[in-house]
Formats: sequence, C-alpha cells, structure tokens
Amino acid sequence: MSGPPPAVAAVRSAVRPGLRASAQPVLVAVSGGADSLALAAAVAFEAPRAGVPAGAVTVDHGLQAGSAQRAREVAGLLRGLRLDPVHVVPVEVGTAGGPEAAARTARYAALTRCAEECGARIALGHTLDDQAETVLLGLGRGSGPRSVAGMVAERPPFWRPLLGVRRATTRAACADQGLPVWDDPWNTDPAYRRARLRAEVLPLLEDVLGGGVAPALARTADLLREDLDALDALAGEHLARLTGPDGLPAAELAGLPAALRRRVLRGWLRGAGVGDLQAVHLGAVDALLTAWRGQGPVALPGGAEALRASGRLVLRPAGSPGRSAAVAPDPEEQHP
Amino acid sequence: MSGPPPAVAAVRSAVRPGLRASAQPVLVAVSGGADSLALAAAVAFEAPRAGVPAGAVTVDHGLQAGSAQRAREVAGLLRGLRLDPVHVVPVEVGTAGGPEAAARTARYAALTRCAEECGARIALGHTLDDQAETVLLGLGRGSGPRSVAGMVAERPPFWRPLLGVRRATTRAACADQGLPVWDDPWNTDPAYRRARLRAEVLPLLEDVLGGGVAPALARTADLLREDLDALDALAGEHLARLTGPDGLPAAELAGLPAALRRRVLRGWLRGAGVGDLQAVHLGAVDALLTAWRGQGPVALPGGAEALRASGRLVLRPAGSPGRSAAVAPDPEEQHP
Repeated sequence: MSGPPPAVAAVRSAVRPGLRASAQPVLVAVSGGADSLALAAAVAFEAPRAGVPAGAVTVDHGLQAGSAQRAREVAGLLRGLRLDPVHVVPVEVGTAGGPEAAARTARYAALTRCAEECGARIALGHTLDDQAETVLLGLGRGSGPRSVAGMVAERPPFWRPLLGVRRATTRAACADQGLPVWDDPWNTDPAYRRARLRAEVLPLLEDVLGGGVAPALARTADLLREDLDALDALAGEHLARLTGPDGLPAAELAGLPAALRRRVLRGWLRGAGVGDLQAVHLGAVDALLTAWRGQGPVALPGGAEALRASGRLVLRPAGSPGRSAAVAPDPEEQHP
Repeated sequence: MSGPPPAVAAVRSAVRPGLRASAQPVLVAVSGGADSLALAAAVAFEAPRAGVPAGAVTVDHGLQAGSAQRAREVAGLLRGLRLDPVHVVPVEVGTAGGPEAAARTARYAALTRCAEECGARIALGHTLDDQAETVLLGLGRGSGPRSVAGMVAERPPFWRPLLGVRRATTRAACADQGLPVWDDPWNTDPAYRRARLRAEVLPLLEDVLGGGVAPALARTADLLREDLDALDALAGEHLARLTGPDGLPAAELAGLPAALRRRVLRGWLRGAGVGDLQAVHLGAVDALLTAWRGQGPVALPGGAEALRASGRLVLRPAGSPGRSAAVAPDPEEQHP
C-alpha cells in the first residue's frame, strides 16, 4: 500500500512527536484556513494512535457578517474529522491596539479559558511563513532581540507543531484530503500589516536576497530564542543569588556583562512591582552602577525610585523624606 | 555667532567622543560618497581640537573607467580639508563571492595594510541606514543571530562613528559645506543586493510597518550585539575552565544551556584546528552530550573525529585504529 501524499505525511510527522510526548488532551484551534485545517486533520489522524484525546475549538470573532454561520460550518467539518469535543466560542473584540491586535487579544483570552476549562493543550497552526512574518514585524518594532525571536513551539497551554512546515505544504495537504479551505479576507486585506508583509515584503526580499528568506528568518529566530533563553536563565540565577533584604550589591552587579546586568535589573524592578519600564529608566538605574558619580535617586513609573546607598542598589517609594542613615550614600563611593 | 548647520553639527558630535578617547592617528576611508565625505570633513574639523593627527585614504578599485582620475580628485578634495597624509591606494579586485564581496575584500585588505603601516585607526563612514541594510542582509543569510547583529562601532583598526547618524544627515552636511558628492553608480545599480535593499525593500518596509524601520533595525542590532558578546564571553570562560589534556567532561558540558554548550563546542573544535564547521557537525557532536546512547565517533571536516569515551568528549584523527583502552566507552554510560 502506498502512503499518504507527501504534504499530508509532512504535517502528520510534524505533530507526531508532540502527541507522543504528552497524554494531555489536545484542542486544535481552527480558523478554517489551510494551516489550522491541515493541523486539525493531522491531529485527528495521529492523536488516537498516540492515545491522546483530541478535540477542536473555533473562535467566532463576530467581526464579519455571517461569522456565526461560518463558525458552525467549520465545527461541522471538524466533527467530520472525528475531533471531539468541538467548541464554538463567540468573543467580543475590543479596539485596543487596532483591529488586528484586538482580535488576537480576544482570541487568545478565549483559547486560554478553553484550555483551563478542559485541562487541554491548544494546538495552533502557525507555520514557518508565519514565523518569518513575525520576525519581520518584531524587527520593525525595534524593541530588542526578544521581539525578533519569533514564536515558541511550546509554551503552555499553547503548542505550535507546524513552525517548521511551509504554508504551501498545509495548502497542499488540505487539497490532498479534500478539505474546503476558507481564506479569511483579512489575510489578504492590504490594511493589515501582516497581510502586506506576506503579499509584498517577503516576495520582494526573496527576489532581492536570492530565495530562502522565510526559512532563513525562521532559523535565525530559533537560534536567537536559544541564546535569549540562556541569558534570561543566567540572569535569573544571578538575581536569586544577589537579592538581599536591603537591595542588590552595586559592585558585584557592575561586574556583570551589560546583557546580564540589564536583565538582572529588569527582573529586580519587575519583581518589586515596577511596571511599564522603558529603556530610559533601565539606563538611568544602570548608570547608578556603571557611571556612578554620586547622582541622586532615579524616578521610576508607579511612584518608586531607585538609588545607590551604602554600596547597594535600593528601591523605595518616591519622595521619601531625606535619606535615612541606613541608605546614606557612602562619601568615599561618590567618585570611585 | 551662530553655530554650524544642524547636520554638520550632528556629524561632528558623532566623531568627537571617539577622537577624544584616543590619541592614535586616524585615517578616514573615503569613497567620495556623502557618508565618507561628511565624515572626513567632521574629522578634519574635530581632530586638531582633540590633538589627534588625521589623514585619509581612498581606494581605487580600478573597476570603472576613469577610476584613477576620480581617486586623484577625491584625494585633492581631502587635502583641501587639510587632512594629511592622504593616500591613494590602488587594489586588484578578484572574483570570489561575486563583485560586491570581492571589492569589499580587496578594500578591507588595503585599509588594514594602511592601518598597520601608519599605526592608525581607520574611520569608516557607515551610517545607521547601512547598519539597517546589513541587518536585513544578515537575516537573509539565516546563519544565526550574529549575522543579524550588524556592524561594530569599534573593532581595531576600524572605527565607525556614524552608525547612529542617518544617511540624510551626511548628505545635508555635505551640501551645507559645499562638498561635491560623488554617487557611486554601484550604489544604485539594481544588480547589487544592497542597492536594491536600499531602493526597494527598506522603503516598502517603512511603508508597511509604519516608519522608523531603519532606526528599529539598528537598535535591535545594538542590543543583540550586547547579548551575543555576553554569551561569547561566558562560553569562553567555561571553555577555559573545562578544557583538560584529555578533552572535555561530558556531564558538565551537558548541563550547560544549549546556547552556551554549542559555543563551548565550537570554540573547542576551532581551537583544535577543525575549520569549516557546519551546523550539522556541531549538532552531531552535541548529540554525544545530550542524546548519548553509545553512538560512534562523529567525522569532522579536515580529517578529525569527535567521540565520547570514559565520560569525556575527545578529538582524534579520523580512522584511528579501534578504541584504545584509555578511550573505551564506559559500558554504564551507554544508556544513561
């Protein structure tokens, strides 16, 4: 007997290891597009062989006329694949951050709730091409390496087994299995940045750089994630080691490489409840360590301030009356 | 008295700290384009004030008719700025890697020679826009985070003080000072990838992602470089600590985060003279640590092989006859 068509086999291979690694029930999040449908079909095939209960969930964003009807049709298709249970979850989409971001926020909140209620992993159909687009979007934000590191394959409750699979493969897998793909008009609406990256930027980059750009972006994201995870873990160890009841030791912190020092500081401030940290705040606190010339406290968002005193970095409510004896700056420290 | 025009002031501010930080003579590498001319003018103005001897060097690639004449004209212009000495260095451009890469190789070799002969730093006119293009080119290669981390401001003998300055600013500075800019036809030749990134890809990305893309790319590259430098330094420390006369301790290595482990392995193999390492080789050696099930030696480029024996990772010439007693695999180690 001949095996399944190559595209079908490729998608099944992508989901198999993750299904065999855990007996936790899986719910496939399905929009009705090729990526999530191909994923649903592959999970429906492989999950029973791995002894894993597998259902699906489709979110009705209520943003287009007939969306409820569409969601019911998708649900019917999923039941036909013998996924069980199949949930249809209507959500209300807000406006914060623009329509794309608001829809994503509502969708992820609904999926997270679903995962909790069912004790399930949520399988998402993001492909290698989605990963490449995510990297480019992150580059455009310029908020640092983590924003270029793309999506993670496994971050409970979410599981993205298709990050190494091309979009063309999921399309072919749907065609091979006679699955009716619904192309979300948003995906080709030039008002949406991701749609334009897909339709205009990536093809131009492929043309200019000579092909293979999407896999190159995805590969870079993988290696980068590994690097950043290592730095975050190391910084976490340093923070745990250095944190005392009276702040952090300035000299020891100053001796760490910049990449670790900033992570330790960020972790320390966040752990103390200082939110909405900007690069400028972090830089000013870092200067208390690396460019110390006796400067005063650094005001932080949320009404706290950081200062250096008695050789330690300490945090206190802003506008504390004077400097207590315990936190008086060392005179000999002001011009090291 | 009013100060210089803003663009001229901006370029001068960019070179000032670097000139004050070192008394080493500077040679500005000048193509005749706006970036390097604006840099030359700024260095010519600031260097005497910082007490730093400053000259220039222009490379004649000999690739276009009249290039020798052009180089002489540029040299005359530089002497007019009171840079001294001004060198004109003809080079022979090979073919390896394509015309862009071959010209770059010849140019950097000539500049490095010049730096050595004169005991000078070489100032290069790369701008923030060049940095953004370099990041995109690196992304297209997909050879890992380092290729996305862009150019370094200071790597002796090279110094790039304008990495934070926009190309529009160098153009304005040249116009303000009446400096005749020569636009290298290569810079707009669509046969060259960098020219197309500049003319097509970056403007489209700006349009799609909503502006600010070049600064975002440059900022990401800065942060990324900091992260990668920290990891490289940490891996170097681990390598120095772990290396023994009989290889590396497998269990200790296996306990390092993947990002550090791979760097330690790469450093170890390179230090032992194993060149041309591919990801596949590194992965197979890493599997001796993290997926150990008694597998045999891993063949490496250049006729070496790595194997795990007696709990250590060792390197030996390929095809060594059998396994000596000293390097026999521990039986109890085969299925940990």
